[in-house]
Amino acid sequence: MYEPRYARRAEAMRASEIRELLKLLEKPGIISFAGGIPDPELFPKAATAEAYAEILADPAKSSQALQYSVSEGFPPLRAWIAAHMRTLGVPATADNILITSGSQQALEFLGKLFITAGDTALVTAPTYLGALQAFSAYEPRYDVLRPETGNRTPQSYREAASVNGGAVKFAYVVPDFANPTGETLPAEARNRLIDLAEELEIPIIEDTAYVDLRFEGTSVPAIQALDVARHGGDLNSSRVIYCGTFSKTLTPGLRVGWVCAAEPIVRRLTLIKQASDLNCSLINQMVMERLATGTYAAQVAKAAAHYRRRRDAMLTALEQNMPAGVTWTRPEGGLFIWVTLPKGMDGAELLRRAITEAAVAFVPGGAFFTDGTGRHTIRLSYSLPTEAQIAEGVARLGRLIAAGGA
Amino acid sequence: MYEPRYARRAEAMRASEIRELLKLLEKPGIISFAGGIPDPELFPKAATAEAYAEILADPAKSSQALQYSVSEGFPPLRAWIAAHMRTLGVPATADNILITSGSQQALEFLGKLFITAGDTALVTAPTYLGALQAFSAYEPRYDVLRPETGNRTPQSYREAASVNGGAVKFAYVVPDFANPTGETLPAEARNRLIDLAEELEIPIIEDTAYVDLRFEGTSVPAIQALDVARHGGDLNSSRVIYCGTFSKTLTPGLRVGWVCAAEPIVRRLTLIKQASDLNCSLINQMVMERLATGTYAAQVAKAAAHYRRRRDAMLTALEQNMPAGVTWTRPEGGLFIWVTLPKGMDGAELLRRAITEAAVAFVPGGAFFTDGTGRHTIRLSYSLPTEAQIAEGVARLGRLIAAGGA
Repeated sequence: MYEPRYARRAEAMRASEIRELLKLLEKPGIISFAGGIPDPELFPKAATAEAYAEILADPAKSSQALQYSVSEGFPPLRAWIAAHMRTLGVPATADNILITSGSQQALEFLGKLFITAGDTALVTAPTYLGALQAFSAYEPRYDVLRPETGNRTPQSYREAASVNGGAVKFAYVVPDFANPTGETLPAEARNRLIDLAEELEIPIIEDTAYVDLRFEGTSVPAIQALDVARHGGDLNSSRVIYCGTFSKTLTPGLRVGWVCAAEPIVRRLTLIKQASDLNCSLINQMVMERLATGTYAAQVAKAAAHYRRRRDAMLTALEQNMPAGVTWTRPEGGLFIWVTLPKGMDGAELLRRAITEAAVAFVPGGAFFTDGTGRHTIRLSYSLPTEAQIAEGVARLGRLIAAGGA
Repeated sequence: MYEPRYARRAEAMRASEIRELLKLLEKPGIISFAGGIPDPELFPKAATAEAYAEILADPAKSSQALQYSVSEGFPPLRAWIAAHMRTLGVPATADNILITSGSQQALEFLGKLFITAGDTALVTAPTYLGALQAFSAYEPRYDVLRPETGNRTPQSYREAASVNGGAVKFAYVVPDFANPTGETLPAEARNRLIDLAEELEIPIIEDTAYVDLRFEGTSVPAIQALDVARHGGDLNSSRVIYCGTFSKTLTPGLRVGWVCAAEPIVRRLTLIKQASDLNCSLINQMVMERLATGTYAAQVAKAAAHYRRRRDAMLTALEQNMPAGVTWTRPEGGLFIWVTLPKGMDGAELLRRAITEAAVAFVPGGAFFTDGTGRHTIRLSYSLPTEAQIAEGVARLGRLIAAGGA
């Protein structure tokens, strides 16, 4: 009845492998490295309760908080974020900030703003699956960035894009503690990416969901900061669109993220926000502004220490349990370790066996690739299991891989 | 720098007339009939404060409330809405319900699900401006429904759609106390619309934002209820997609609306939800479930009584102050009265003069039409001004129209 009436794009929008997998995880007793969501132990519950209570106890504030509001977002929250961006070397004002329903909504809006069917989006291999889901509704083709090992020439990307009558529209990267690899792009690779974007005359979408969860090592400048420096400090001339979120540092439950970009882009995205869902919940934005002002630095420090212990537990367990031929990343932050399996071993098949034979779950890597490669990779998250569960789960997984590789 | 990279659809996404106007309303002393937003006096502030406090005081509930959650929405809220739909003659279960960020997001998702560029959306003239903004991102053409005075033949709609190589994809209506006219479609017109949709084999999108605000008269069955009855009571065979919201009865500040539809459509929309913003704020959904359970009936009664007094004040003021040649609707509910100006008088020009010469604001009707007509109409909302302000504002407007028509 409905199928013949769906838009052409509906073909590109299918249930995700990860989503289907998450259903299996409700099986009791399973040790899950699949999620990658924050540990609720870290949520600032008391401060959140206090913020809601204070706002709702004030007649004027509660009238405002429960009403419709402007699509750009709550001005004091935009101002706090602009100040935060200035600490990163990005000279933002509140006019450079749009509040979005998590950074996922920012990605959806950017797909909508830039992609006409047949256009090309440049993404890494692997890349964040949620970004692919957001973009794919607009029917792009994907081409592969290799910012560390060497991108192709601008001419090569341009020619590949024009085969379908489209153009290269943007480059998308998660430069810090990437989902899924946990790796961070060095400054040289960021600068080479800006060089490429300049030659292609395209924007760069910088997704920084995990950037604040650094456990050790030195922060690398934001791509937006590097690009702004090339434009004499003028953010409104920058080609970088920075997507940030409070989901990994404070809480994902209020659905508050942001875009920081040149004003013309923010104005365009604001029109999209208005047509999409009018505005983010104002009461949640008002609460988030209080949480950010009151607890941001302390929460970030607490979260980094917490996840560092779990990463350490996982790295130790991998050293102790993985057979020869298995390699993995050693992230300086974030929530993920990326494992390359022995040659010929399939991550999806391993998952099926891991769930049924070892009560362990993770995400097979294939879904993170747009080019059909990566089937011999898996993503492990250490954000939710305890250190004891990590040791036990990795040991089981190591035995399974050793047996499968024999 | 950016313009050449924007998607083709960006041309269709411009700042709205209404939005630009709302900026003028910040001028102090203005009497505004422009908004159409609920009166914050009615918000259930104490119950809302209590709900947040209770959820956040419970360690398990607060861990859940501040975490990511399933895209379909909070199961108890979906169950409450399904029960509510059953009182309307729609035999829904929770599986027929998707929670959206207000009903605006439902409209955006439906545009995304059904429209490929060049397809046709059938809308009334006038229709809800926000729906046009949501759909237009997907580059439809519009054709005009006249459910009361007579639609064209299915063949005529089909032929018009095929000229651009597209197809008719859906019919969109606000059947109860419509924005902008305040009018309600009689049952016969609803049935004729279903007849047309059957012949065209298209879904009907039923936007019910104002349906609960009935002051008097008899409720007309939901189009979805009428259509389900044609299918032996099987909602999963219905072609009607019902979009509901708590924004006009409880509060718009939590951003909670819903879609009720056949399960295959709900599953498709859930994928779109996941790719768009993952999920609605769970804490807000949990609060809304408590508000709905505890206060829905009382809030609806209170709101209807409140807006009825204001509608009465506006109808009285119109009778007393409007010169000959001006006509208006007499809505049985909702937030709007629709005024037809004397022949040749332009609503947008009248607004410019009303703001500067009379400190009165409203929305010119032209923006609600897809066919370029309606320039001699205006929309008045009585939801926010007091009865005294309504009397004074309409008197000023009457004098201005009388002078302009002389």
